[in-house]
Amino acid sequence: MAHTVTVGLLGLGNVGGGLIELVRRNSAVIAERSGVEIRIKRALVRDTTRPRPVHREFLTTRPEEILDDPEIDVVVEVMGGIEPARKLLLQAIERGKSVVTANKAVLALYGDEIFQAASDRRCRIGFEASVCGGIPIIRALTEGLVANRIEQLCGIVNGTTNYILTKMHEEGLPFADALRRAQELGLAEPDPTLDVKGIDAAQKLVILAGLAFHVKASVQEIGVEGIDTLDVEDIRTAKEFGYTIKLVALGQKQGEQIDLRVHPALIPNTHPLANVRHEYNAVFLRGDAIGEMVFYGRGAGSLPTASAVLSDIVQIAHAPSLNGWRYHRRVRSTPVESDSRYYLRFPIYDLPGVIGLITTALGNHGISITHALATLREDPRLGNVKILTHRAAAGVLRRALDEIARLPVLHGKPVAIRILE
Amino acid sequence: MAHTVTVGLLGLGNVGGGLIELVRRNSAVIAERSGVEIRIKRALVRDTTRPRPVHREFLTTRPEEILDDPEIDVVVEVMGGIEPARKLLLQAIERGKSVVTANKAVLALYGDEIFQAASDRRCRIGFEASVCGGIPIIRALTEGLVANRIEQLCGIVNGTTNYILTKMHEEGLPFADALRRAQELGLAEPDPTLDVKGIDAAQKLVILAGLAFHVKASVQEIGVEGIDTLDVEDIRTAKEFGYTIKLVALGQKQGEQIDLRVHPALIPNTHPLANVRHEYNAVFLRGDAIGEMVFYGRGAGSLPTASAVLSDIVQIAHAPSLNGWRYHRRVRSTPVESDSRYYLRFPIYDLPGVIGLITTALGNHGISITHALATLREDPRLGNVKILTHRAAAGVLRRALDEIARLPVLHGKPVAIRILE
Repeated sequence: MAHTVTVGLLGLGNVGGGLIELVRRNSAVIAERSGVEIRIKRALVRDTTRPRPVHREFLTTRPEEILDDPEIDVVVEVMGGIEPARKLLLQAIERGKSVVTANKAVLALYGDEIFQAASDRRCRIGFEASVCGGIPIIRALTEGLVANRIEQLCGIVNGTTNYILTKMHEEGLPFADALRRAQELGLAEPDPTLDVKGIDAAQKLVILAGLAFHVKASVQEIGVEGIDTLDVEDIRTAKEFGYTIKLVALGQKQGEQIDLRVHPALIPNTHPLANVRHEYNAVFLRGDAIGEMVFYGRGAGSLPTASAVLSDIVQIAHAPSLNGWRYHRRVRSTPVESDSRYYLRFPIYDLPGVIGLITTALGNHGISITHALATLREDPRLGNVKILTHRAAAGVLRRALDEIARLPVLHGKPVAIRILE
Repeated sequence: MAHTVTVGLLGLGNVGGGLIELVRRNSAVIAERSGVEIRIKRALVRDTTRPRPVHREFLTTRPEEILDDPEIDVVVEVMGGIEPARKLLLQAIERGKSVVTANKAVLALYGDEIFQAASDRRCRIGFEASVCGGIPIIRALTEGLVANRIEQLCGIVNGTTNYILTKMHEEGLPFADALRRAQELGLAEPDPTLDVKGIDAAQKLVILAGLAFHVKASVQEIGVEGIDTLDVEDIRTAKEFGYTIKLVALGQKQGEQIDLRVHPALIPNTHPLANVRHEYNAVFLRGDAIGEMVFYGRGAGSLPTASAVLSDIVQIAHAPSLNGWRYHRRVRSTPVESDSRYYLRFPIYDLPGVIGLITTALGNHGISITHALATLREDPRLGNVKILTHRAAAGVLRRALDEIARLPVLHGKPVAIRILE
């Protein structure tokens, strides 16, 4: 005997539409597996007159018709944005409803407030869909790996930038062309800032790091570099050295602190993340019991995201009252930067002794070199010195680069990209 | 406030020892995340006098001291083997205890009986550790992907054979040498039959396919080929064609039936499973909502397996009575074989017209060819004709090979290995 859970939607865009489609298509499968029958009763929209593939009486413009409906067990927020999403989530919790949200932005900014409210009211909150679409990474971190101390988390969590980087890597396209290609395919927004500047990835990192390391962080505290300034020259060189450049969201223990960063990094081709192509996402974890683990899949799209929302609804139907999972974040993160290996590129005038000058300057700061390569053009006589270093402290490296940048043999700013080990 | 769950162990070998170690090390982490305090009260062993890192009074040789102890909430079976594991699991369920098992063999053989008993008594049964060690694949299939129709499942689920194949692929070792290497490292048993013949993988496939496709199958019904007859020549050729040979456990829809098979297969190097090296495991899934997904990690070892057992214990502590997940299997599997592309090798005497003879014979059966390659030796004048085909039906291919095998130009049996698409 199946039991029915009644759902109200806040929002009926891309994800909401996917949800309705998936429930129509697979509700028998869901009921057979889980014993739960899902009924979507009503959806909050701004405009009920827009043509949609649902009955008019299914729609409402008044939040109360969902929040105050005693029949509705679970309120699903798929409207996106900060307000009114935050306010409506809190109101639903206040009324004792369980909530499910796909909204990474609101959780990255107001997660503590929302989790605390849910905990106070003993309501459940599902947020599997907020990070990496259909990949069950939230459930893995909270439940499957509950017995592990997570030592490192490294995610390719933004499909747009991964698609762009794949095109740059595999077809040698410059950033602007690869971005245009992504926009033509609908993989990048007309204004791609949040994606290409790494902000979207940083929001997801705040959520993942909260679960993995119990760290309270904000997007502002995380060191974020995007991919919009990446030169295809560096991608090509990385490839020659046996690396692939990816935008990574990184969390790792550094003594008692957690180093959280989003930036492009050179990943060795033997690393399980190097081969994550196109718009796919993947999260690499190292735990003290499990060792290395990777979750790979589609990080966006209406159906993968709807799949995650439905898994949360079923879980809540099975145990409607808060069942013990705790999302509190104990440690307040203070920015730290782990040591790292680096790829460096110095745009130079081709003059005798330039390589010696640069490598000596690095050596003077205690930075040792594993590979050095010079590429030169005939006319004008310009070139690049490219270097892979051993592990170095970020501060030391910055000082060395500042010093080298002042040398008269450089005709451009030095480039530094971390190497993932 | 944490609540305590009291656990009794059946067995204290590799996994049981890992469990005790991990609880000692990480119980504070577990309690902080989940609110559950885990206390292991007693372990059933055959011999209490063997030196172990636990107090003598912790051990018992009498199952009743665990099964009849009202303090014990969860009985964890980590003894392995069929009997008495099966009997003790059923006895625990009869007494209303929830059970957790890491025992793939007993679930592959007696899963229906055990799941039914648990369902009748409304006891919970955790078996995350039975497949792929620490990878939360059971939880993903039952919960995270509950809203998906799974279309294909393809797993590298046996670490021993994957290690052997990695050595054959990367270092060109013949099977026997690679096996010896695995045995020296403790990655293969002194008697490696269950692993190299594909039986272990087939047991895991029975469990995974039950969850993914609701199919009732037995190891006997699954077509199983091992890796012990693989020639390193074929691995080398696959590599030249851009493929890696892996032992795959495959489940896929074929009309209303499910095609279940374990065999070596050529995997294109761009496929996410191709790069799964050494003793790692990975499971590839295609679902109608999520699209393609991969879970990758360590499939064995005491700590990864213990990590999975602990995640089950925590879940049971949160919801001790059966909460709705259903493991029944609706479809009875009848063996079917999907069409497939094939890699073929024909050991030939180097005579004029041999390639034509073979390709014509294939053509007569309607099998078309995408690549053909002949390699020849001078003295004696022997060689191989190697062919990649388009999709062909298994029966048709078998008839064609039988016919070609009778040609006097062959000096050995034709080799046929499926190509994964």
